Amino acid sequence: MTAAVFSIGTELTRGELVNTNACWLAEQLTAVGFDVVEHETVDDDQKRIVEALQRLSKSAKVVICTGGLGPTSDDLTTAAVADAMGVRLERDEASLEAIKRRFASFNREMSPSNAKQADFPKGAQVLPNTQGTAPGFAVNMNEARCFFMPGVPGEMKTMFSDHVLPTIAKLATRNSYQVHIRTFGLTESRVGEKLADLEAEEPSVTIGYRAHFPEIEVKVLARGETASKAETTARRIAETVRERLADAVYGGRDDSFAGSVGQLLRTRGLTLSLAESCTGGMIGSMLTDVPGSSDYVLFDAVTYSNGAKEAVLGVSGDTLRANGAVSIEVAAEMAEGALRVGASDIAVAVTGIAGPGGATEDKPVGTVCFAVARKGSPTLTHTRRLPGDRDRIRKLASYIALHFVARVAVGKELE
Amino acid sequence: MTAAVFSIGTELTRGELVNTNACWLAEQLTAVGFDVVEHETVDDDQKRIVEALQRLSKSAKVVICTGGLGPTSDDLTTAAVADAMGVRLERDEASLEAIKRRFASFNREMSPSNAKQADFPKGAQVLPNTQGTAPGFAVNMNEARCFFMPGVPGEMKTMFSDHVLPTIAKLATRNSYQVHIRTFGLTESRVGEKLADLEAEEPSVTIGYRAHFPEIEVKVLARGETASKAETTARRIAETVRERLADAVYGGRDDSFAGSVGQLLRTRGLTLSLAESCTGGMIGSMLTDVPGSSDYVLFDAVTYSNGAKEAVLGVSGDTLRANGAVSIEVAAEMAEGALRVGASDIAVAVTGIAGPGGATEDKPVGTVCFAVARKGSPTLTHTRRLPGDRDRIRKLASYIALHFVARVAVGKELE
Repeated sequence: MTAAVFSIGTELTRGELVNTNACWLAEQLTAVGFDVVEHETVDDDQKRIVEALQRLSKSAKVVICTGGLGPTSDDLTTAAVADAMGVRLERDEASLEAIKRRFASFNREMSPSNAKQADFPKGAQVLPNTQGTAPGFAVNMNEARCFFMPGVPGEMKTMFSDHVLPTIAKLATRNSYQVHIRTFGLTESRVGEKLADLEAEEPSVTIGYRAHFPEIEVKVLARGETASKAETTARRIAETVRERLADAVYGGRDDSFAGSVGQLLRTRGLTLSLAESCTGGMIGSMLTDVPGSSDYVLFDAVTYSNGAKEAVLGVSGDTLRANGAVSIEVAAEMAEGALRVGASDIAVAVTGIAGPGGATEDKPVGTVCFAVARKGSPTLTHTRRLPGDRDRIRKLASYIALHFVARVAVGKELE
Repeated sequence: MTAAVFSIGTELTRGELVNTNACWLAEQLTAVGFDVVEHETVDDDQKRIVEALQRLSKSAKVVICTGGLGPTSDDLTTAAVADAMGVRLERDEASLEAIKRRFASFNREMSPSNAKQADFPKGAQVLPNTQGTAPGFAVNMNEARCFFMPGVPGEMKTMFSDHVLPTIAKLATRNSYQVHIRTFGLTESRVGEKLADLEAEEPSVTIGYRAHFPEIEVKVLARGETASKAETTARRIAETVRERLADAVYGGRDDSFAGSVGQLLRTRGLTLSLAESCTGGMIGSMLTDVPGSSDYVLFDAVTYSNGAKEAVLGVSGDTLRANGAVSIEVAAEMAEGALRVGASDIAVAVTGIAGPGGATEDKPVGTVCFAVARKGSPTLTHTRRLPGDRDRIRKLASYIALHFVARVAVGKELE
């Protein structure tokens, strides 16, 4: 069964925004067995939206559209669909009430312009939006069932998972199965080399890679006569992938790296404190993205200034003067201070030079010192020289710090 | 002058790879004055490639294609172009020699399969590839000049900059100018209403909106007889937009909200400490994304546990017991503690319930308490009920906290 993804928005055609929605949708559709044969993107132009809809609804059986459902004058999707189908727009009072209630629940009044978000082509099936104001809708056009959703990724993803996927999954021929394996610690080329021979050995399997710095996701897609045969093959090859990538594997499709470390802490009944300098709160933010993380994350001291390192974490002025703020000695005292103040089982500290400024002759940009303190054990330290710009250095340092926490949590040394 | 971007590859249509090439190309084309009206992506299917080429070469004057020029059996672009034009493929001996030389320079022999990369539709102009084996080419088809380049981003970008852009830049009419205005604090619909009449008043202007939660970006695009007339119009209307959106405007295209608050602190010679609970380091992370932020961000205490709030920030156990951790009383003591420990001029504290757990009867998910402490002034506090899921609540709370810092930095009350 063929599917097409249709994105609407001048911000996309002008290149102001990378179209991650199309990629996410295509991946979802592929995973349940659709052949996604086309991604189309047009600007906010009613004539072009109508033409594309006419064409896509003849060439694919399912068309998934995003964008152009907002309240402003450049949001033209609903009008274009009505135009393409030759039907009128009709106001859906239930949707209008839902939008008003959403505003009221935040003690605000609905703007008059939001009312147009309750208008739908006559005969459309309304798709509720639990994350925002614009409902989506579905219509039959030519050969296709067409779904229209907001372009805001969070709203779109929830609507797709709750109201689109359940409807269309049964249309797809499920003769494929995909396993996602998330890794941290190996480069994409190294991962590729380790798995290079698998496709030749098993021709029904395609191995895909997605780099999402600093992670590499490996996707094992198998096709078979039936979904269950495909699943068996995919799971078998995925097991080989996991063996070959060993320690770099941290989870599956919906796992986050920080979540996997948090889960480990929870399982072992361990609590964590952090002392961050160059990462500036990123490690804490990654950890606390995960619901329930307050059970094991007790305290994060982001001590940018030397004064804060001394006052909050008890780092000694002598250590700072003798070694500089970016040193394993300071990292160790930061970790020990965080352990004491946070009264946790483990504490990790990061201090480094993320750049572009701050480098010295013997400490170039990218120099990052790590320390992990544990109750009743000597503190472990490590220095790395990390590649890339400020953003990459901070992100990679955050991952490495969490990686070290995970190793210490299971009783290992840092490396 | 209209342009279309055409991407070829099953890895794209299946969602294994985000199409960053299309975004990059669209941005380049827009910058020199093209109207990019469509991005098309199809899988490695010769019939679909031919159909898309036929269509795009009639609807746009310039078509920029990437992908499908590799040596393997699923690389079909060159054959599809010849098919669409009704011409034969011809081998270009100079290109074949260049490919052989490239392999020789790495002490390798050319694989026989690479020879097909020296085949081009009869009459095509060859575009050299200095970064890889596959040359590109250009042909005239229907109404358009069509360019074909490899999909590998590094090869494509060099080829585009060296051999495509110089040819097409003179075709574009540089008669447009766009101003970007970034805002925080108004909903998209409210922003749209405030600007609703501007397009009617000035028909050469298009106003676009981009929601990037919780920000709304307004784009004022003007067209004119000349680029300079367009620029004058765009700047004039942008000034009106800024006046109407007033305090919600924080910067232009390349500004970040945290950066604008940081710039304000720097200009006024003020330093900042933070005490975060539900935002878990996100505010610190946003601020320290900005190079040089260590000049004004001194300290961020992420105190998830009550113990850490007491030990690090000196929040009193009585206040915690009497009011709960999510209260303006605790927020105030957190901010005062951060001010004292961080020895900064201003301190902001956030404590709230980001969910999904943690709600009580009188404190539903989304309840967030803020406090801003200033040296020598009474501490200001504020409670908000924020909409959305955990991620949105944390993000919006972080923005509001920074918004409050900016207000206090210029001597205003919180609201």
